[in-house]
Amino acid sequence: MMDLDTVTTGNRLALSRLLTEVENDTQTGRDALDRLFVRAGRAHLVGITGAPGTGKSSLVSCLAKHIRSELGMSVAVVAVDPSSPFTGGAILGDRVRMRDLAGDTGVFIRSMASRGALGGLARATAGVVQVLDAAGFDFVLIETVGAGQSEVDIARLAHTTIVIEAPGLGDDIQAIKAGILEIADILVINKADLPGAENTERALRANLDLGYTPRMLHNSTHMATANDSAQEGAQGWVPPVLKTIATQSVGMADVLSSIKAHRDYLQQTGLWKVRDQERLKAEVTHLLQTTLMQRWQRSVSQEKYEAILDQVYDREISPGAAIDILMNE
Amino acid sequence: MMDLDTVTTGNRLALSRLLTEVENDTQTGRDALDRLFVRAGRAHLVGITGAPGTGKSSLVSCLAKHIRSELGMSVAVVAVDPSSPFTGGAILGDRVRMRDLAGDTGVFIRSMASRGALGGLARATAGVVQVLDAAGFDFVLIETVGAGQSEVDIARLAHTTIVIEAPGLGDDIQAIKAGILEIADILVINKADLPGAENTERALRANLDLGYTPRMLHNSTHMATANDSAQEGAQGWVPPVLKTIATQSVGMADVLSSIKAHRDYLQQTGLWKVRDQERLKAEVTHLLQTTLMQRWQRSVSQEKYEAILDQVYDREISPGAAIDILMNE
Repeated sequence: MMDLDTVTTGNRLALSRLLTEVENDTQTGRDALDRLFVRAGRAHLVGITGAPGTGKSSLVSCLAKHIRSELGMSVAVVAVDPSSPFTGGAILGDRVRMRDLAGDTGVFIRSMASRGALGGLARATAGVVQVLDAAGFDFVLIETVGAGQSEVDIARLAHTTIVIEAPGLGDDIQAIKAGILEIADILVINKADLPGAENTERALRANLDLGYTPRMLHNSTHMATANDSAQEGAQGWVPPVLKTIATQSVGMADVLSSIKAHRDYLQQTGLWKVRDQERLKAEVTHLLQTTLMQRWQRSVSQEKYEAILDQVYDREISPGAAIDILMNE
Repeated sequence: MMDLDTVTTGNRLALSRLLTEVENDTQTGRDALDRLFVRAGRAHLVGITGAPGTGKSSLVSCLAKHIRSELGMSVAVVAVDPSSPFTGGAILGDRVRMRDLAGDTGVFIRSMASRGALGGLARATAGVVQVLDAAGFDFVLIETVGAGQSEVDIARLAHTTIVIEAPGLGDDIQAIKAGILEIADILVINKADLPGAENTERALRANLDLGYTPRMLHNSTHMATANDSAQEGAQGWVPPVLKTIATQSVGMADVLSSIKAHRDYLQQTGLWKVRDQERLKAEVTHLLQTTLMQRWQRSVSQEKYEAILDQVYDREISPGAAIDILMNE
């Protein structure tokens, strides 16, 4: 059994090893997650997402530096790279870009590779984030590339989601951004010195004025009956639109103060707790599904199961009919 | 109960209505999917994916026209738009772009919106594709935007996956393309008249020479024990690298003949069947999980369940410990 105290008292090698176990979903990793659970729940989880070309990594790196220098708090960065679903290698070299953070013991950087399995990346990321949280980091920044379902799942992990835009990206990218806007708590126009920054800002503000209610939509299924839902709608966190030039450290103070303001907002409205609970509920549900499936598999003969699968393969019976047969065994 | 014969005999209004039911996962939709299952399994499912800015929609539209004019076969297009996870609206207006296909009864176009739920989009797309297959379309072209896990899940639906590249996209986008390469059966460099097309081609071929074994990696977990895996590796389908200018219909004959060649390859090696079976097995497994969960929920008291969830929320017990308690009830 792994000695978890070394992990939570700043042993980086032990931490790295544990994260690898968690990423690979080994028994050691799962046991550790289970034992670390009661120590987690204190870090501010910040998701940072945006389309390719917006300068995410620079901004994450710059933000980490600001948290260190302005707040003196510790930061872990989880760089999620969905670009390589199968090889298990992180291509973008986030570690390289973050080079100037090296040597600071209050900063820890981890690049993740995607998992092939449905939802695998989101789960592995959740595990890594939980370990870093339990290890005592004040902030965990979760950087994600691209757009789509996996982004949304990862955004669900975060207390605060920052969406980064940049001027002058193509039409297709604009469309993707429009979708991702809905998960934004804070909007950042990076590369604000490029031509078109004002157009980008105008477009973003127009979208916000059209009545987006970020995060209410996000959690609508879970929150349909919660009072907090109405509360959020009423008090309305309006995502600020900020301009930055991350490569020159311009505008980072505003980003940092918006993050703090959003944290205050979440805590005052009780939404901080609501978001945590939603996440934990989803985790319990997933674990329940896995456990039920394992139990069921032990109860049914593999032969019988495969015979019925064969009938499905030959399109003699539908998957629904197959389930009916299997369940009535 | 919906009259499914009208759907399979070319009634487009009935087909559209049914697709909406399936997309919304209604009881009517689920029943219809179940009954249509035995009629599906004949269409050639072609996934078409690529980063923003590569001209996917033009290529899909052009390919559909070529299938009509050269083969005289029927085509359905499913345009998947993951850019809007919550609003339920398709932003990109694929229907507009496909305007010149309108009026041809051998072509049917459907735009999909993303679902918020984990894996929801992939499942809804699978349902829509199955209906179009059962409705008798010879080809179903599945167009996806962006990159990441959802792309991969959707690619798993297809017999043949075409990945589109274009010259002159940024560095970040190049990285995403490198990842998505691994799911490609056919590579297309669209906008081949733009500067840099040769560089793009060289980069792609270099990647292929580095020993990618597309689709073997893709299915590695399922196929570890299958003979077909070794067979695929040995005979080796090497993804052709084709150049097109979709807006001018240049290069489409090669795309079409590569699609046919890939189909022949899949059928001769038995992989066509293997891929179908993998998909069906995943479907049965998912349905089994859902059914087991529903049964379990009926067997446990809601009060007890929520009391244990509360202990998890307060971080008194871990999700794993919660499952142990719930399972021993």
